[in-house]
Order: sequence, then C-alpha cells, then structure tokens
Amino acid sequence: MFAPLQNDTFLRACLRQATDYTPVWLMRQAGRYLPEYKATRAKAGSFMGLATNTDYATEVTLQPLERFPLDAAILFSDILTIPDAMGLGLSFALGEGPKFATPIRDEAAVGRLQVPDMDKLRYVFDAVTSIRKALNGRVPLIGFSGSPWTLACYMVEGAGSDDYRLVKTMLYQRPDLMHRMLAINADSVAAYLNAQIEAGAQAVMVFDSWGGVLADAEFHEFSLAYTRRVLAQLKRAHDGVIIPRLVFTKGGGLWLEAMGQLDCEVLGLDWTVNLAQARARVGENGPHAKALQGNLDPNVLFANPAQIEAQVSRVLDSFGAPHTDPARNGPTQIFNLGHGISQHTPPESVEVLVRAVHAHSRGMRAKQR
Amino acid sequence: MFAPLQNDTFLRACLRQATDYTPVWLMRQAGRYLPEYKATRAKAGSFMGLATNTDYATEVTLQPLERFPLDAAILFSDILTIPDAMGLGLSFALGEGPKFATPIRDEAAVGRLQVPDMDKLRYVFDAVTSIRKALNGRVPLIGFSGSPWTLACYMVEGAGSDDYRLVKTMLYQRPDLMHRMLAINADSVAAYLNAQIEAGAQAVMVFDSWGGVLADAEFHEFSLAYTRRVLAQLKRAHDGVIIPRLVFTKGGGLWLEAMGQLDCEVLGLDWTVNLAQARARVGENGPHAKALQGNLDPNVLFANPAQIEAQVSRVLDSFGAPHTDPARNGPTQIFNLGHGISQHTPPESVEVLVRAVHAHSRGMRAKQR
Repeated sequence: MFAPLQNDTFLRACLRQATDYTPVWLMRQAGRYLPEYKATRAKAGSFMGLATNTDYATEVTLQPLERFPLDAAILFSDILTIPDAMGLGLSFALGEGPKFATPIRDEAAVGRLQVPDMDKLRYVFDAVTSIRKALNGRVPLIGFSGSPWTLACYMVEGAGSDDYRLVKTMLYQRPDLMHRMLAINADSVAAYLNAQIEAGAQAVMVFDSWGGVLADAEFHEFSLAYTRRVLAQLKRAHDGVIIPRLVFTKGGGLWLEAMGQLDCEVLGLDWTVNLAQARARVGENGPHAKALQGNLDPNVLFANPAQIEAQVSRVLDSFGAPHTDPARNGPTQIFNLGHGISQHTPPESVEVLVRAVHAHSRGMRAKQR
Repeated sequence: MFAPLQNDTFLRACLRQATDYTPVWLMRQAGRYLPEYKATRAKAGSFMGLATNTDYATEVTLQPLERFPLDAAILFSDILTIPDAMGLGLSFALGEGPKFATPIRDEAAVGRLQVPDMDKLRYVFDAVTSIRKALNGRVPLIGFSGSPWTLACYMVEGAGSDDYRLVKTMLYQRPDLMHRMLAINADSVAAYLNAQIEAGAQAVMVFDSWGGVLADAEFHEFSLAYTRRVLAQLKRAHDGVIIPRLVFTKGGGLWLEAMGQLDCEVLGLDWTVNLAQARARVGENGPHAKALQGNLDPNVLFANPAQIEAQVSRVLDSFGAPHTDPARNGPTQIFNLGHGISQHTPPESVEVLVRAVHAHSRGMRAKQR
C-alpha cells in the first residue's frame, strides 16, 4: 500500500540503533513561520478547516520537507481533536489559542464523558493515510496526541491558562472526577493513536505539554500514571514493523528517573535539561533504555547563522559520543527543539539548523573512527 | 530604634537552628485575595500609588498579619522598582501585569543603563522602616528584589511574556549586551537590598521568577552567575544581627546542586520539587548547607479544609523529620507556597493552612521526643 522507506534514520535512532548522522525534525515544523503554510491556511479559512481537510493537511505537512532535509514528517493536526470529538466544541480564533464551547467543570459533565466514536476522528486518519502516500517513502510519518492530563487541562479550563486554577481545583477538590476524566482520556488517546498507526503512522508521540505544571506527587498520580495507561494499550508493531512510541513532558526534567521506567522507546526533553545528565538519569541499559529527543531552545533560531551552528554543536556535544556499533543498540539522540518552533522564526534559520545537525553529527562519527 | 523581636522562628529556621514548629509565610501574602487590600488599593488609586506611599505600603503589609498567625512579614512592593528607577517608566494597568514605557532593546539603550541613584528608591526604604516600626517586633520583616535575570526579562520584553523571545534573542544574538545589562542589574540589586537592610529589613530574598525559562547552560551563565554577584555584595549582618539571604528560582528544581553552592542561607522551591530529594541534592552539611523554603501548590487553597490540611501534612512529611537539637544546626524548612498566592484564594483557606502548618509541625516534633 505504501512506498518503501528511503530514509529510516529517525526510526533507527528511536530504536537505539546506530545511524550515520543524528536525525532531526522540529515540533510544529509545519506551521506559521512558513509563508506557504499561511497561504494554505488562508485558503482553508480556519485552523480546523485546515486540519479537517485531507488535501490541505497533506499539503502543509509536506511543506517543511520541500524546504529542509528533515528526517521525519509529523501529521498536521491539533492536540485537542479528541475533546472536540467528545463534543466540547473546539474553535480557534485568529491569533488566539484554542477554545472549547462547553468545558467540563462539574460532576454531571464528567459523568457524560465517553471515549468518542473514532469515526468522528476519521478526518485525522484519512489525513495520516494521505500524508503517508504523499511522502512516498521519503521519511517516516509521526502521528501524535495530547496526553490524558494535557487534554484534561484544556477540557476543564476551556482554553489556555497561566495558573491552571480550574483544572487543579478539580484535581485537589474532586480527585475522583479527575481520575475518571483521565481514564476516559487515556483510553481515547490509545484508541486514537492505534487508529493513526493503522492508517499509516510509523511512530506515535504523546505530548504532555502541561505535565510540568503539576506538583511532584500529582505529576506521578495524574499525569504519568495515565501516560502509562495509554502506552500499555498501544500497538507495538504494525504490518510486522515496530512502531516507536515517544513521550514528551514539557517541564518534566525533574522526573526523568520515573519517566525512564515508561514502556516507550523515546523521551522528549525541553531545553532546561542537560543531555549528559539526562542520559545518566534515564539509564542506558536494561529493558527500558530509551532514545532521547531534543532539546534546543527555539529562541536560538533568532540568532545569527554562526551562533545557531555553535548552539547546535553544543547540544549534540552535550549528548556526547554517538553510538556507532551496528551490531548492538546504544544511546541515540533525535535532534529537535525543546518545544514547538515560534511563528516568528526566519525559515532560513531552520535551514541552518538542519544542515548543522547533519554536518556536525557526521563529523562526530568521523572523529570516532 | 526598633522593638525587640518576639517571634524569631522564621529567622532561626533560616539559620538552620531548631524551632518549636515550622514557620510559615506566603509569597504575595499581602495582596488581592484580601478584601482589605483591595480597599486600600482603591484609596491609593493605582498599584504604584500604593507601593510608593509609606502609609499605604505599611497598612497592606500588616493586613495578613492581622488575620493569620504568620511568622514573617514581607515588604509590600514590586520586583520591578529598580528598572523603574533606571528610567524605564513602570506602570500597571488594572487587571494587567506590569509594563515599561521604554524597554531596553538595542545597544544604545543598554549603553545608557546605569545603577540607579538609590535616592529614587527612597520610598521603598522609607516603607521598610515604617513597616518595621509598625510590626513592633511581632515577626521579622523580609525585604526583596527581582533577580538580575528576571529584571532583564521585563526590561527587554517591556511586559510579561509567554515565550521570552525578545530577551532570549538578545541573549543568543548579543550576549555581550546581555552580560552588561545583567552586571548593572546585579550591582543595582545589591545596593537596593543593602539599603533595605539598613532601613530595617531582617532578611532579604531574591526572586528569580524567570530563571526557569532558560536553557541549562544559559541558566548558569545568565541567571545564577548574577545572583552570585548579588550575594557576594550583600551585607552579612546589620547591627550585629545576621541577615539571612533567600534565593528562589521558579522552575529551578533541575539546578539544585548548583544552587546548593550559592553563598546564601535559604533556597526557595516551587511545588514541582520533591522536598526529600531536594534535601539530599542541596546537601545537608558543609559550609553551604541551606534551609529550604516551600513548596505547596497555591491551587491547593481552592480545596476543602480537610484536603488543605492533608496536603500541608504531606509537604511537611515529605521534608521529613524536623531538626530539634538546640545544640547544633540541622535541616530546617520554612513553609511557604511554591509561588505567589492566587488573587482568587478564599482567605479562610489561608487560615486553615497556617494553623495546619503550626499544628502538624508541632506534632511531628512531639512524636520525636
């Protein structure tokens, strides 16, 4: 059904296999910093018009690959499609963040929540298949979802928040309701990601964008436990090929020991984390050894080319000597930003970054020989 | 000049001396969650009208002490008084955050920056003296300042930010300018805090509210190094009494080993940090052993009384067995929130919190005997 994969560097790095260079892709790489994205979005009329139209979603997913030699594509969609399918009414006002028409604020609303009919998310799975076909084997396609906790934040707050007061009030005051919502979210996320895998996603990523706002004990109880519940339900392979699972908790650097025990292949890290320390804390051996993904500060892309190159080298060097033995697994990095790329980023900076990652990481391997 | 101190529990805990119970105060304890604060602010007309008027500043500083048996008072002021005195033109629109009329965005603007004449901050020092007199020895008075990096964030951004793009662009593109600004900020903060000490502050705290947004290497170079520069210039004692120095980096949990080496007495911690782990990471012995301050999630105060009490106990228990030997120094905690109290907090919740801290921490000591 799909063309054979020509560049498997990303997938190999996910599985801790040796690669010729460090693969790179960028969170939100299909987005507003690209003029061609803005043009497509203007045609689509709205963000959801863009995300729900298979052709448009395919078009914008491939746009950054036309410009830059990236090593993976990521489905163009939003982390909030699931609550939308649950009936919360997602919308995006221009220049503002997401908004839900009917947020979940009380026991009755939580009581009505159910794992949504996956048919309501058919537009996502259709986009996955369309993008995979359009990629024609160039690079692998990553599917994704928000984490159960991150979905709950938006579902209760109804929009972005700077203090998470409403969702945390429910958490502290009615932990029973929060647990019920998170269980439903986890089962929804698992069904959603499995359907993306069946539709053609070659790796899946869980974005725990707001895990880092939780207190220590609550992170474990209300975020990590439900990420674990998702992972336990995910397909390990499809059509005989392993599907790597990536988990990214923004602000989760304090909890790397616990995240190192997750049943997944890759941990995403933001820029606050020292990669050498992260390698040691996550652990490099045992059944749960993981690849690490990250972690350049997206604001580095506002510096000059030579400065971007220096920072890229610093991130690669801080991860340390690359694993080059094809006979065994070992520590691998997938280069990425520590968070989504800023809409204000000059596209030329991305070109500099991607070329610098490839060149410097090849150079590191050459030196080891 | 000032009445003798009746409750030195906070100061003793800062110096790692045994106390009968765990002292407690709350960041932003004088603030909008109190109706009497709102009444005074309405009289003052504006936030700066409140902060620059000695009588009003004294009045609101004492308001929470009239309600709750807190163990310290903190000067009512703002972290941005220094850049205001530098001529940046601070204002607060109602319901919005701080704003600077002339932010610092280029080499010329950085070149004009100077340590401000401390006479322009006389209103702060007058407030300190007035508050100390009004306290009449009830509890100690804490003075404070924003950290050099946190001041720089606002000075460049001109207001709050959610991506710190402008200040980080300067940092990555023109580190020379950023270092110059931070050096001036550090020397200004040191002069400012020393003047507060001379005016009557019995402890001083540096709020590195935005240290946690920096990448790992940049935190050390652009935040911690300048906090260190401040600390090196601070008075150790005044009138023969030691003046404890507290440093709080919001989101700084990853860097506790480095912060444990700071020449200060207390580290503030936000709620993401596990206190037992923090004790071990900061280190309990040696010349740099520190008291820890924190770290309840302010959103706990939206739960019910029994739930607040349970969470208070959990924070106290997670710090662990209190130090009770009067003959030596040992690990001590100062109870606080992990960030400023929310304006939406029911005042009754604060009453529950303060009483729970005192009762549970006395109980922990009784059990040890």
